[in-house]
Amino acid sequence: MKASDDHTTRLIKYKRILIQLKSLGLEKVFSSNLGDAIGINPTLVRKDFSIMNMTQGNRKGGYRISELIDSLNNILGTSELQDVVVIGCGNLGKALIKHEAFYKEGINISAGFDSNPREAEINGIPIYPMEILMNYVTQHEIRVAILCVPAGAASHTRDKLSEAGIQGILNFAPVELKSTEEQKIQNVNICLEIENLFFQISSKGQALRSTKTN
Amino acid sequence: MKASDDHTTRLIKYKRILIQLKSLGLEKVFSSNLGDAIGINPTLVRKDFSIMNMTQGNRKGGYRISELIDSLNNILGTSELQDVVVIGCGNLGKALIKHEAFYKEGINISAGFDSNPREAEINGIPIYPMEILMNYVTQHEIRVAILCVPAGAASHTRDKLSEAGIQGILNFAPVELKSTEEQKIQNVNICLEIENLFFQISSKGQALRSTKTN
Repeated sequence: MKASDDHTTRLIKYKRILIQLKSLGLEKVFSSNLGDAIGINPTLVRKDFSIMNMTQGNRKGGYRISELIDSLNNILGTSELQDVVVIGCGNLGKALIKHEAFYKEGINISAGFDSNPREAEINGIPIYPMEILMNYVTQHEIRVAILCVPAGAASHTRDKLSEAGIQGILNFAPVELKSTEEQKIQNVNICLEIENLFFQISSKGQALRSTKTN
Repeated sequence: MKASDDHTTRLIKYKRILIQLKSLGLEKVFSSNLGDAIGINPTLVRKDFSIMNMTQGNRKGGYRISELIDSLNNILGTSELQDVVVIGCGNLGKALIKHEAFYKEGINISAGFDSNPREAEINGIPIYPMEILMNYVTQHEIRVAILCVPAGAASHTRDKLSEAGIQGILNFAPVELKSTEEQKIQNVNICLEIENLFFQISSKGQALRSTKTN
């Protein structure tokens, strides 16, 4: 991720935690609480908030949670339900269609697409053949897709999504796809993440870390 | 990810692409090919390789693919099959257990665990109750787990995994878990990724980007 994305990610994380804290009945929060919750230095939290023209005012009091949420909503946009489609309804695609956390987070899977649909619907969400993707996406003004096709189909399917006007893709296919000016792509390569974990906990990875630290 | 992880990730990516190129019958490759393939500057590729004592020698010829693979294996460790367990066998956990890409990438899901297993096995992989996790992990020397439990169970389950001696966790639960000295955690928050995509393609996200560019 680029620096600008990291900044956005932090703002989104602040917002989620603040909403949780508010729902627990809290009214105020310190930069150190937020720093702890998302694992960053409180100085960075204060810097982010001062850019948003939020200052702590009374150091002992902390920030007012509802004011922070309002400011973050102004920057990030308020959270109405966002429609996405899932492309590729194999094991992973199907699991994401059934994923209950999405709805709670304001994400609505409006349809699934597959080159060879085996079911007409999954959990009440319609599954369509790829042929009608273009029409559907245009008609329902869908802008974001989750890509769960096999490696071999990734690049080709991405072209179809571009043609259909999809502007953002969360890519689970084990092939790195590159963002363009018109289309933002976020790659989640599960195998690569696991391989990386194995390396980090290996003696070689640990030796590398200690060399860099010392 | 920290800078050191980025470096490792690049090395793993080089290795995967080189293995693919080799299997296509290629013998040599240029830094620009690898740069294009993983979306980085060829200068960085050459820098990474020169640290590994690989130099291009004849500029026109490119790098020898098998020598690069050997050097990368020396650094990363050779790729025998790596055992992992899946914790939480709901929709997502089940999909990962069935995920065919893993085996091809040298990752072997040896068992699934669930607080309330509904099946005795999925695709031939045994599903056990959480009670026997500790025994299983010790006996089979498992070091890495994929965490697919609901948000509310994440932190508690992570403690159990620590006790059992798990050193690396790929966390799909929508709760950010922090790495410790003994345990490396990679968080994959799918909702956060989608929310971030929506922000990036929004007019607000585009305005932010153009302010930073100009």
